[in-house]
Amino acid sequence: MATVDGRNKCTGKLKFILSYTINKQILFQGMSVPRTLRAGKLNEKILQLFIATGKDEVLSFIRELNIHPVITPVLPTQMAQFSVKDEDVDIVIGAVQSDLTSFMNAWKPIISRFHLIIVKDPDLKEDLKVPEGFDVNIYTKADMDQVAGSALTSQLFSGFSCRYFGYLISKKKYVISIDDDCLPAKDDKGFQVDAVAQHLFNLAAPATPLFFNTLYDPYRKGADFVRGYPFSMREGVTCALSCGLWLNLADLDAPTQALKPEQRNSRYVDAVLTIPAKALMPMSGINIGFNREVLGPALFPGLKLAGEGKFRWETMEDVFGGMCAKVICDHLKIGVKTGLPYVWRQERGDAVQSLKKEWEGVKLMEEVIPFFQNVKLPVEAVTAEDCLVEISKQIKEKLGPLNDVFGQAADAMIQWVNLWRKAGSSSS
Amino acid sequence: MATVDGRNKCTGKLKFILSYTINKQILFQGMSVPRTLRAGKLNEKILQLFIATGKDEVLSFIRELNIHPVITPVLPTQMAQFSVKDEDVDIVIGAVQSDLTSFMNAWKPIISRFHLIIVKDPDLKEDLKVPEGFDVNIYTKADMDQVAGSALTSQLFSGFSCRYFGYLISKKKYVISIDDDCLPAKDDKGFQVDAVAQHLFNLAAPATPLFFNTLYDPYRKGADFVRGYPFSMREGVTCALSCGLWLNLADLDAPTQALKPEQRNSRYVDAVLTIPAKALMPMSGINIGFNREVLGPALFPGLKLAGEGKFRWETMEDVFGGMCAKVICDHLKIGVKTGLPYVWRQERGDAVQSLKKEWEGVKLMEEVIPFFQNVKLPVEAVTAEDCLVEISKQIKEKLGPLNDVFGQAADAMIQWVNLWRKAGSSSS
Repeated sequence: MATVDGRNKCTGKLKFILSYTINKQILFQGMSVPRTLRAGKLNEKILQLFIATGKDEVLSFIRELNIHPVITPVLPTQMAQFSVKDEDVDIVIGAVQSDLTSFMNAWKPIISRFHLIIVKDPDLKEDLKVPEGFDVNIYTKADMDQVAGSALTSQLFSGFSCRYFGYLISKKKYVISIDDDCLPAKDDKGFQVDAVAQHLFNLAAPATPLFFNTLYDPYRKGADFVRGYPFSMREGVTCALSCGLWLNLADLDAPTQALKPEQRNSRYVDAVLTIPAKALMPMSGINIGFNREVLGPALFPGLKLAGEGKFRWETMEDVFGGMCAKVICDHLKIGVKTGLPYVWRQERGDAVQSLKKEWEGVKLMEEVIPFFQNVKLPVEAVTAEDCLVEISKQIKEKLGPLNDVFGQAADAMIQWVNLWRKAGSSSS
Repeated sequence: MATVDGRNKCTGKLKFILSYTINKQILFQGMSVPRTLRAGKLNEKILQLFIATGKDEVLSFIRELNIHPVITPVLPTQMAQFSVKDEDVDIVIGAVQSDLTSFMNAWKPIISRFHLIIVKDPDLKEDLKVPEGFDVNIYTKADMDQVAGSALTSQLFSGFSCRYFGYLISKKKYVISIDDDCLPAKDDKGFQVDAVAQHLFNLAAPATPLFFNTLYDPYRKGADFVRGYPFSMREGVTCALSCGLWLNLADLDAPTQALKPEQRNSRYVDAVLTIPAKALMPMSGINIGFNREVLGPALFPGLKLAGEGKFRWETMEDVFGGMCAKVICDHLKIGVKTGLPYVWRQERGDAVQSLKKEWEGVKLMEEVIPFFQNVKLPVEAVTAEDCLVEISKQIKEKLGPLNDVFGQAADAMIQWVNLWRKAGSSSS
């Protein structure tokens, strides 16, 4: 059991039968009841939560308000924490370098209790070096060829995109994926950060995309909703995507890194927050976790730059996929979080040399953003796959004429959905 | 000069004449030029900024890309910092307690160089005690009666709302306002926070409401835009509102505080971020700064609870006004920031006793949120005043029938706009 920090605040299924009387009027009883109280939308779960504390002050205010619950109580200590079982998690590592020894040994205390999927970049010639002591499956070009065919393999799974093969063949609810040039970070007090536990907490605790909480993640220990936050929204929604951050070398683009070669990120911001609905952000694939059951196919290798290389700032596939993922989450009314956990990112590559490649991606973003800001998905699209197919059509129509890479991305999305369906049906 | 942390990144008016050649084609020259470069929307300011660094790596990549600028250079050291003149700032303090001695002495190192406006709660009977050593104007009920008449005074300026009289009569560009139960906070390294300088930096540096930057405030020293953030949006927009936070006693509602009487906020989150466009948040009036010239009239005392008291969790006027302010900022394409600075908030009031009053506000929020999520403002509304008048109409029509307090709030908005116009014209 991966115990993660936090409490069941609003989403827990508290098992008691209620009969509320407000102002002498019985409003609902048992489970088949209206979900709102009179003169407001304070739903029963919120009130249950208040009651379940058993605190004198709270019970007295409930009495003051003349609310008479009849409960089969559940003690606060029995309320489940936001937690995830180890067997529901795959750690996916895309190997773009051959020797993973120091990377994996550094992460051992954090990842060794989980099942690992290591996917070797199909362009990588050298044999992989993976240390002992892990529960790991390694996948190479031969596996990809078998699942996707060799043409699709080289198109979809080159370089950093090899990780997506791991997303495809995982059968777990949650996937955590961290670039192989990252090490565990330390927090602002000098303690090593358990990035996996933090991602899992982010994913297991609800997200709050419909209203911004100025006190950051309200489900975190010591935090809460701020005054004025509507009670009807305090249950939150499923969190589908957790985007972590980077100490030392931040995920800057090549122009910015070239402009400021000395710049390092040393600020540890001790916060997680939900990115509001309708706001777009550039997702980075360096350090993420996601709910594969809910959002899985939306994390895909679509946009490939003509001169794409093996350094992060030479790629845009994650940023582009992240736009799709965010638009899909907004449509499906699920959430995306950003902030903790940090990883320590080591230096790799020459920003100035990369600029010739990255420049294309920088320009493409100027077309991509207005497109995604205006994507509308039909109500019939109720899964990430549905949404992806629809977005693909719209990309083909609206972005396709602007640049060939967009048409290719749209095609790749359809191929990806087909692969995803095939992998899903073969497993079931 | 209140020097504040930060650099001129994108908004500076760099004074040089440019002649760019890209791919051998002259695109623009001088000032009357198209604002975009071919095949993208990398505007000239961004490129100017790159050039202005004078760094070899950057200049070499500009050469690689065959961009030939002819510049009258401005050295990076000459680029203005985001700064605000002391004489452009009023510190407004609403006095709901009579003895301000310890409050003002604690803030003296931070606020003594600014002009202060102290407004005495018209319901407060005792004489104010204000220590020596400040440049201060004190306003009382007599001043309010003169400007607004005695009926409006008691309606608009009671309790915490007395501060709004200070907003009304200020003639400065920026207003900073902090509740009188707050002391300067210390940061995570133990240094006292200059909350005023932080608010002024937040207001002087651009906001980025149209696209989320996962690296928080990109204009802050040591920070930047993340990979994938579109260059065309890196100039940002005017920041009109800076919402600070609270250590020790966070700004919780009475039910939450009653539920968790021991809870204190001890987490110093070292970040400022722009709240994305279209996202609503519950603004707290405890610790804010705003651009009075741009947003001034949108900070107003509108929603008064029937049983409103003298404790923060018994009030909703700031939360309601904050919704208006956010909707107006979104419409006017200006920004709202949240995060730093923190203040240290001392305990005051009995949450359980306050619950009987606060409960009404909690219920009202459930009606208010869907309303503000759906407010549409006409293109003709181009000032905060215009927007406020329009919102008032819509409140009257849509919320008015639900509860008398909404109709009263709508009327108060119109009265407020009239007062604001009168105060403005009397000063000019």
